[in-house]
Amino acid sequence: MKSDALQLVVVGSIGLDDIATPFGRREAVLGGSATYACAAAALFTRPGLVGAAGHDFPKEYLAFYEQRGFDLEGFQRLGVPTFRWAGEYGEDMNNRRTLRTELNALGAFRPRLPALYRRAPFLFLGNLQPRVQLEVLAQMRAPRFVAVDTMDLWIRTARAELEEVWKRADLVLLNDTEARLYSGERDLLCAIRRILDRGPRYVVIKKGEHGAIWGSRRRIGLMPAYPVERTCDPTGAGDAFAGGLMGTIAMRGRTDVASLRYGLEQGAVAASFCVEAFGPERLGRVTPAEQRARWERFCRMWQTSWKRSAR
Amino acid sequence: MKSDALQLVVVGSIGLDDIATPFGRREAVLGGSATYACAAAALFTRPGLVGAAGHDFPKEYLAFYEQRGFDLEGFQRLGVPTFRWAGEYGEDMNNRRTLRTELNALGAFRPRLPALYRRAPFLFLGNLQPRVQLEVLAQMRAPRFVAVDTMDLWIRTARAELEEVWKRADLVLLNDTEARLYSGERDLLCAIRRILDRGPRYVVIKKGEHGAIWGSRRRIGLMPAYPVERTCDPTGAGDAFAGGLMGTIAMRGRTDVASLRYGLEQGAVAASFCVEAFGPERLGRVTPAEQRARWERFCRMWQTSWKRSAR
Repeated sequence: MKSDALQLVVVGSIGLDDIATPFGRREAVLGGSATYACAAAALFTRPGLVGAAGHDFPKEYLAFYEQRGFDLEGFQRLGVPTFRWAGEYGEDMNNRRTLRTELNALGAFRPRLPALYRRAPFLFLGNLQPRVQLEVLAQMRAPRFVAVDTMDLWIRTARAELEEVWKRADLVLLNDTEARLYSGERDLLCAIRRILDRGPRYVVIKKGEHGAIWGSRRRIGLMPAYPVERTCDPTGAGDAFAGGLMGTIAMRGRTDVASLRYGLEQGAVAASFCVEAFGPERLGRVTPAEQRARWERFCRMWQTSWKRSAR
Repeated sequence: MKSDALQLVVVGSIGLDDIATPFGRREAVLGGSATYACAAAALFTRPGLVGAAGHDFPKEYLAFYEQRGFDLEGFQRLGVPTFRWAGEYGEDMNNRRTLRTELNALGAFRPRLPALYRRAPFLFLGNLQPRVQLEVLAQMRAPRFVAVDTMDLWIRTARAELEEVWKRADLVLLNDTEARLYSGERDLLCAIRRILDRGPRYVVIKKGEHGAIWGSRRRIGLMPAYPVERTCDPTGAGDAFAGGLMGTIAMRGRTDVASLRYGLEQGAVAASFCVEAFGPERLGRVTPAEQRARWERFCRMWQTSWKRSAR
């Protein structure tokens, strides 16, 4: 961390999730994109969380936020219940079925950024209605680097606003299904180009257990996922990936290709911890030393034969 | 190539394929595991092809073998029709549907290795009935390094013979679905360990467009696939991958981890050319310079941030 000033703002959902996987069921697990992204980012910087919980949000979950070192000046508690999501994963953990969604506090959420947050250089806009993401952007002074995530629903129902967000973003994150849905292209290289045409400098397509592919106007990059022994619950892995990425970028204060690559590796490692237990339980206990050790192990697994000296 | 002696023997099927993909249909395309594996291996060494075609095998396909530099002393032509396979790929090119299989010459195939072949140090056993693979192994003098591929059918119907082959192999190749079918484990790390327990030194699990994961008793390695702009026909990609791998291993004459990694990269690049057109059409035209240039491009795409000097 460079100074006392807040380097990274994370805006997203806060939720209570009912999760069923082949390894069991859990009810009212702490969730939401802001939760997972901050839990990963907190390994590298003190993230400012902007999100709204409801009157039923358990004290111990707030304690988790504090212990993990989130800045909570942007946290809101509304007079309605917390956002609820219920979902189920089959044997193929890449596909999930949403059983129930109750927007509650998420539906009423209007982001209000504290003065300190508005001056932050780095911003991660987790999956939220594009209209709400635009409200956040309108409050930021002059962020150096903005990353945004989204979901299939907004691609289908709010395409124009979504493209407005992308125009103002430096990095667009989405998963392979969403990239294909947006672009109408099965091929991910074509999808990356179509999204780069909207304005961002980088596009990162998440492929779950198959890693990620990213692109800029001049380059394409590939990254496998860290092979997890037993994926217990994939919920939040994509947000942890983004949080780890933005946490390292905020910590280092650099946005060049080498820094992006380093951030993606750290994000992949954070995501691998995330899926090892239900909710953010494992991710919330990761130490910087564990993160570092697994990152080195990860890099050793996929080094190439190509001599760096030949570059 | 080190000397005039044959370095690599490739045993597998020779077929005529009817292929339908979203990009079109082709009938009686040159195919079979031996065809694709040799076409890739020929970029690096002169492979000796052992396989059986039928009386209807077109002259121009034999000419393709010769032009591509296969050694054909082990090639047989039988008095029955050539093996026929008909298959269809949907939008998701990872899944295919077999429409028809006529064994013909493949059903009657009894491998007879010429004396020169029996002394070869490197052997690739493409997908064939394990009993036939064992007949080949019985004819080899003392191969230094044997790689074997297989398919779901033999895992289901000839498990004991398959394990007998694996016991005598140095490297076992299979795809992710087959690895899960064999091991009963969804997790590929567990599947790798279960197969290593049968005796081979290396296990390579092919994941199609998602790359590969490999393991030895002491290591796990990850590799993405080269991102192809437009996958026209995935037929034979797995065999081209194996052929590229074994071609480089035979050319270099080394079987350590670094050589395996280099071979897997070259195999992935050969496979990426393979899928760009129907059948072995594109793969059969690849020049060593094209292969080399794409390999460098590929490695540049997935270098890690981790300093080699820190190893």
